[in-house]
Amino acid sequence: MPAKRTLAEELASRQREISVAEFFERNRQILGFDNPQRALLTTVKEAVDNSLDACEEAGILPDVLVEISRLGEDRLKVAVEDNGPGILRREIPNVFGRLLYGSRFHSNRQARGQQGIGISAAVLYAGLTTATPAHIISKVRESPTANVLDLVLDTSRNLPRIVAEDVMLWGDRTSGVRIELTIRGRYQRGRQSPYEYLRGTAIVNPHSRLVLVEPDGTRTTWDRATPELPKVPQEIPPHPHGLELGELMQRLRSSRKPTLGEFLTSDLSGVTRRALADILARAGFTGKEDPRGLHGEAVEKLLEALRATPMAPPSADCLSPIGPLLIKRGLKNVLGPIKPEFYAPPVSRPPKVHSGCPFLVEVGLVYGGELPPDQPVQLLRFANRVPLLFQQGACAITNTVAHMDWRRYGLEQKSSALPVGPVLILVHVASTKIPFTSEAKEAIAEQEDLTREIELALQAAARNLKLHLSRRTRRAMAQEKFAIIRRILPRLAEKTSGLVGKPVPDLDRVITRIMDVVTVEIQGGGKDPSSPSREARIEITNYTARTRHLELFLEVPLEATGPGFRADPPAASVQPEMGRVSWDLLKLSPSERKVFQITWASGAELDPEDVDVFVAGVDEAHLLGADPLPGDWDVRLPAALVEAAEKGEDSAGPLPNPGEEDEEVDYDATERKESVSQNED
Amino acid sequence: MPAKRTLAEELASRQREISVAEFFERNRQILGFDNPQRALLTTVKEAVDNSLDACEEAGILPDVLVEISRLGEDRLKVAVEDNGPGILRREIPNVFGRLLYGSRFHSNRQARGQQGIGISAAVLYAGLTTATPAHIISKVRESPTANVLDLVLDTSRNLPRIVAEDVMLWGDRTSGVRIELTIRGRYQRGRQSPYEYLRGTAIVNPHSRLVLVEPDGTRTTWDRATPELPKVPQEIPPHPHGLELGELMQRLRSSRKPTLGEFLTSDLSGVTRRALADILARAGFTGKEDPRGLHGEAVEKLLEALRATPMAPPSADCLSPIGPLLIKRGLKNVLGPIKPEFYAPPVSRPPKVHSGCPFLVEVGLVYGGELPPDQPVQLLRFANRVPLLFQQGACAITNTVAHMDWRRYGLEQKSSALPVGPVLILVHVASTKIPFTSEAKEAIAEQEDLTREIELALQAAARNLKLHLSRRTRRAMAQEKFAIIRRILPRLAEKTSGLVGKPVPDLDRVITRIMDVVTVEIQGGGKDPSSPSREARIEITNYTARTRHLELFLEVPLEATGPGFRADPPAASVQPEMGRVSWDLLKLSPSERKVFQITWASGAELDPEDVDVFVAGVDEAHLLGADPLPGDWDVRLPAALVEAAEKGEDSAGPLPNPGEEDEEVDYDATERKESVSQNED
Repeated sequence: MPAKRTLAEELASRQREISVAEFFERNRQILGFDNPQRALLTTVKEAVDNSLDACEEAGILPDVLVEISRLGEDRLKVAVEDNGPGILRREIPNVFGRLLYGSRFHSNRQARGQQGIGISAAVLYAGLTTATPAHIISKVRESPTANVLDLVLDTSRNLPRIVAEDVMLWGDRTSGVRIELTIRGRYQRGRQSPYEYLRGTAIVNPHSRLVLVEPDGTRTTWDRATPELPKVPQEIPPHPHGLELGELMQRLRSSRKPTLGEFLTSDLSGVTRRALADILARAGFTGKEDPRGLHGEAVEKLLEALRATPMAPPSADCLSPIGPLLIKRGLKNVLGPIKPEFYAPPVSRPPKVHSGCPFLVEVGLVYGGELPPDQPVQLLRFANRVPLLFQQGACAITNTVAHMDWRRYGLEQKSSALPVGPVLILVHVASTKIPFTSEAKEAIAEQEDLTREIELALQAAARNLKLHLSRRTRRAMAQEKFAIIRRILPRLAEKTSGLVGKPVPDLDRVITRIMDVVTVEIQGGGKDPSSPSREARIEITNYTARTRHLELFLEVPLEATGPGFRADPPAASVQPEMGRVSWDLLKLSPSERKVFQITWASGAELDPEDVDVFVAGVDEAHLLGADPLPGDWDVRLPAALVEAAEKGEDSAGPLPNPGEEDEEVDYDATERKESVSQNED
Repeated sequence: MPAKRTLAEELASRQREISVAEFFERNRQILGFDNPQRALLTTVKEAVDNSLDACEEAGILPDVLVEISRLGEDRLKVAVEDNGPGILRREIPNVFGRLLYGSRFHSNRQARGQQGIGISAAVLYAGLTTATPAHIISKVRESPTANVLDLVLDTSRNLPRIVAEDVMLWGDRTSGVRIELTIRGRYQRGRQSPYEYLRGTAIVNPHSRLVLVEPDGTRTTWDRATPELPKVPQEIPPHPHGLELGELMQRLRSSRKPTLGEFLTSDLSGVTRRALADILARAGFTGKEDPRGLHGEAVEKLLEALRATPMAPPSADCLSPIGPLLIKRGLKNVLGPIKPEFYAPPVSRPPKVHSGCPFLVEVGLVYGGELPPDQPVQLLRFANRVPLLFQQGACAITNTVAHMDWRRYGLEQKSSALPVGPVLILVHVASTKIPFTSEAKEAIAEQEDLTREIELALQAAARNLKLHLSRRTRRAMAQEKFAIIRRILPRLAEKTSGLVGKPVPDLDRVITRIMDVVTVEIQGGGKDPSSPSREARIEITNYTARTRHLELFLEVPLEATGPGFRADPPAASVQPEMGRVSWDLLKLSPSERKVFQITWASGAELDPEDVDVFVAGVDEAHLLGADPLPGDWDVRLPAALVEAAEKGEDSAGPLPNPGEEDEEVDYDATERKESVSQNED
């Protein structure tokens, strides 16, 4: 320290600017590059997310290839190639070699990438750990050749530096991008692996075709499950609810609209003509004011008026939810082998708004099968269709699940821990701006509005779980009763009839009397690969004392309803894109039985466990072997069924305990009663 | 979209640069400003951390005032004032109004602030939520007046904008800074409050004086517990271990040293003359090469040589550990009211290195008292002397605690959850670069080297816990035995003596025979506030069959050893700064008892539970009512004691079961044996 320098000057002389690239170089754990395993995943994730975003923006069904090869101890080459629109030569260096540069940051709509950091961070990391440049190939449709660039990120200036450049013919590819990075990384399967990430991506992006080539040469393909691109989210202005004073001031100051009225209706969303009048009246403005001329108290008054005025909810156009149908489909695709006994109808909440940004929450819940019963529930977290694999403990999704009281819904739980049980929960948050806890985008921060929505969605799913569990208990009891009756009654009847010298009575009627249920039984299939069964029989029997008007619905795997699918009697409706089959209204007298048969599409192998059977027209207390039609079918039931339900015809009092009657059955009385019941009908 | 524009051009036109301030404005949860409660804490924390850093760098004992006042619903004014060196006028705008600008980012030593983001982020947040500028007063010693500036952060350019400026006389303050911010925030006490943050700061910064004024006017002062400033961490060059290839290349390229030899010894730390020769020989260099002239394979060879060469560990000069003594003191200060039964000797690990950055881990562990026995352990996390209050679930400290098997150490634990028990664990990580998971600096990222050190430190503390728990069990058994013997023997002796017509024998000798322990009893104190006791008696009795050479040590509260403190017999050593008292070697024959008395310093009220008693010269199996001297005392024991311990004189075989003898005591035989023992001595 020079003798004459004062302390304050000495301290001041140390102050200096920090390049954003230097900052992230020194804090690479913030970007998700803190250990070789996580660094590999982050690299793959940033590249694939970019590819999917680019394809969808350009209206192209994504076809993404990920190749990982080992070059040495902890040294991997990662290549990601897509069929997207490609990147113009002039933008390539900045897109890949500059932090905080991108196309999606300033747009207010759902996208995987939002920060303009991800892929450049991977390039930075490659340079830092292996001193190799990124190798990029890009072709746009209009150019006959592809550009080839080798570039590095210069951290002290946060700018790209091109090391080598060329052009080439790129096979028959119309357009696309390929990036190759050599990084310090470690490949392993299992949790938090590129395999898991791509599998999760496939669940929530069923329109994508994803291929992974692992270092040992194993090639896995996740095929497209639907040829439909999700609708492209539209950019919308921010919604006034949740805007802060400073934000509103900035927006007013930077507005290009001539009047306050136009600012409110064009620079914000949700402000209808009626709301506008309301706002202006409340704040005491005419609407003709110059938005750039408002300051201090005037803006505070405006903000108060905005907060007080009821507003249209934000448009969901800027969001791209997965939807209940595809959530269920995605879960079934992945969970098939573990045969869960129950898929709760997925929940897709309506959009809400936080700090002017619309968002929505979707939840899927699966119970039973081979899910471990004594472990914490499995949680699949997704943000804007991207699986989140790290930082589970830091995530608002995890915390919201843990802080709900799951004991109310039939699961074990220690205070504030994940509940325990054979359950898998999928939570998807879609937003124009996901509040990630860090640039690594692995955990969502706690925000009251958001956690409230997650909680509501979870509660809806949990209520269905509870319903299922109590239904399961009730059904188990009914099935036990049914089994006992069917085993004991014939022997009892035979013996008694012999003793009194009378013919054996019609047992179906007696069963009807005791059981008071409609039963559904499904048979068929078979696991023998040499002669795969392709037919299933569904038997429906009315063991109640009334004639029933019922409808039968099946949900089968998509491939089952392809060419070759047959239903006998012919189904009234087959929706192949949803795997749904239904028949016309069906009339069943007491003790009457009807049989339905389906034949699988050619090539598909039938497994009766893949068939979900639903029955409408009888409440679930009187239904055995099938479920009531869930809400997500959204079927308009015939008036007769609705009427029956409204009349509450099933709510007859409890039957006498059959166990008490076993010893002393009065067949005559039984028959008499039955006749009375029939006459009533 | 203009008709002639291609898709690729359209997409390219959307690409643009993102200002770092815009980025953080949109992602303010990353900086710790995502809800009003957390935003308040982050604001206080950033300001206080800066104040403490500045004071310590300038060699000033910190005196920091935090005032929080309520201006309206969710609108708070936060003022933080320090007695630091102040900031020169020309640096004020950049320090407070520009992200990624600071003095500590490029220096390689421990500091609270490292990123050059914190306080400017608070200014950004204030502007965003309340549209008010930051109000800053700063005075350096050399200037008679203080500068007063009102400034805001212009997010689109990430530059400060001065709104108003003035100078003023600032009372009798020599130097210092005061910042006032108006923010959207919510004040509450409890977990994650400014109160908790300052309390935690006081624990690990006992040299600071902190004052908090809450919105309701409550004023809390945490006084300095020591007048000694921690040693100022020195800046050192990075250590070669853990350097990546790309990092090494950059350092070579930007080196100002003329030769490779000088680069290695001056631009890196830990490279001794001997290591240098080794490195050069391994890599095949002379040391005369120009560091900027090395490329490709040459650098790879150099890196291999650096990795293969044994190197001096990094100097700890760049770190400022709290140290075992102050950890214990800090914990005792805070936990006093809950009277823990055991403070494990704090663990302070030697420095290690990760990616060229030295770091070290310290752990304190407390057991029992009023800590809840059926709750997860309480975890106090600290990074560079700063309490971490949020994101516990995301932190490597938490995960390391949860993944250790605590059942081995006597605590309950579900797999991979925090253990359950009346335990509080303090973990402090000190590093030249803490790998935080985000800019909010609330959780530490998982890094193998770091978690390994945390684990080792926790294991050391846990072993002491286990020792304590088994000692406690053993002692409880011994005490029970002692109590029974003291109750039964006199009655037995009286009755038997009466029967045989002999006098009652000396029971101490019999007790000695049966117990074979040295007992320590402490009496005194009392909780009556009207007549506070100021004296304590320590009675030490040798109920073993040998003459003992012992030393007695006390640890008492610091204030107890102030003026007025007396020890009778006079203590051989009193260390008031550590609250430690010890006496000279003490000789106790079998059955002999000695009494020591201490008198508290005037004004201090004695509580015997505040006195820790340690005895050297007898192993813990033969000691009742005191603990063996713990390792952190670092006392050189007299040769006689060491010798005795080495000869293992206490390891006599087990005594006959006293229970079997109770019915049939042969007093003569007992006395004979006692005499033999005495002669042996």
